[in-house]
Amino acid sequence: MPAATPIAVSSDELARVKYDDRGLVAAVVQEHGSNDVLMLGYMNADTLQQTLETGRMTFWSRSRQEVWIKGETSGDRMWLREVTIDCDGDALLFKVEQEGRGACHTGDHSCFHTPFGAAAES
Amino acid sequence: MPAATPIAVSSDELARVKYDDRGLVAAVVQEHGSNDVLMLGYMNADTLQQTLETGRMTFWSRSRQEVWIKGETSGDRMWLREVTIDCDGDALLFKVEQEGRGACHTGDHSCFHTPFGAAAES
Repeated sequence: MPAATPIAVSSDELARVKYDDRGLVAAVVQEHGSNDVLMLGYMNADTLQQTLETGRMTFWSRSRQEVWIKGETSGDRMWLREVTIDCDGDALLFKVEQEGRGACHTGDHSCFHTPFGAAAES
Repeated sequence: MPAATPIAVSSDELARVKYDDRGLVAAVVQEHGSNDVLMLGYMNADTLQQTLETGRMTFWSRSRQEVWIKGETSGDRMWLREVTIDCDGDALLFKVEQEGRGACHTGDHSCFHTPFGAAAES
């Protein structure tokens, strides 16, 4: 099992996070090393705190309206390595180590595994 | 100036996009080649269509409530290269060629240029 890396964040840093009117901030998840984008999820203040403290990616599921500890059922857990915040504070970028099969419930490495259109003929 | 690459999308593909209650879909922007995540924006159906047709990243600005053609003022334009859709259709991943200084209005290469916390002492 990969090591858990809790991230210590100051109250000033936490105050920079801008939640939307649903109380959520966007969380882009990128694989450490390959730099593949694995998924996009959302966090509320509680699941952000839980992610930072446990070192495991924990989201707020908008469809199920519940805390969602990634990989808790499947074993395909995401282990936090590094976090950055964007210039206006409404998105966070999490670099993670992906355990198991991959990020997607389909078993694919990334949730972004479906091509959308193709370069038009010129 | 980099080449524009319009993306041809079928109506079946367009129908897979799930817009939220504000009529928006999340757009993660990643640099072609480096795989750096440059920014997260949002699109409505019109700006998604415009992005695909023009080959230039075009968002809906939630703060200004207007169409936002990235780099129109600054010259730091983003040229579309490839698009994928995620497994539940509520996020798109755009691979782009970044022109000019970078993606961020600060002049930084990526909007995610600010570290958020640090690995806690074990």
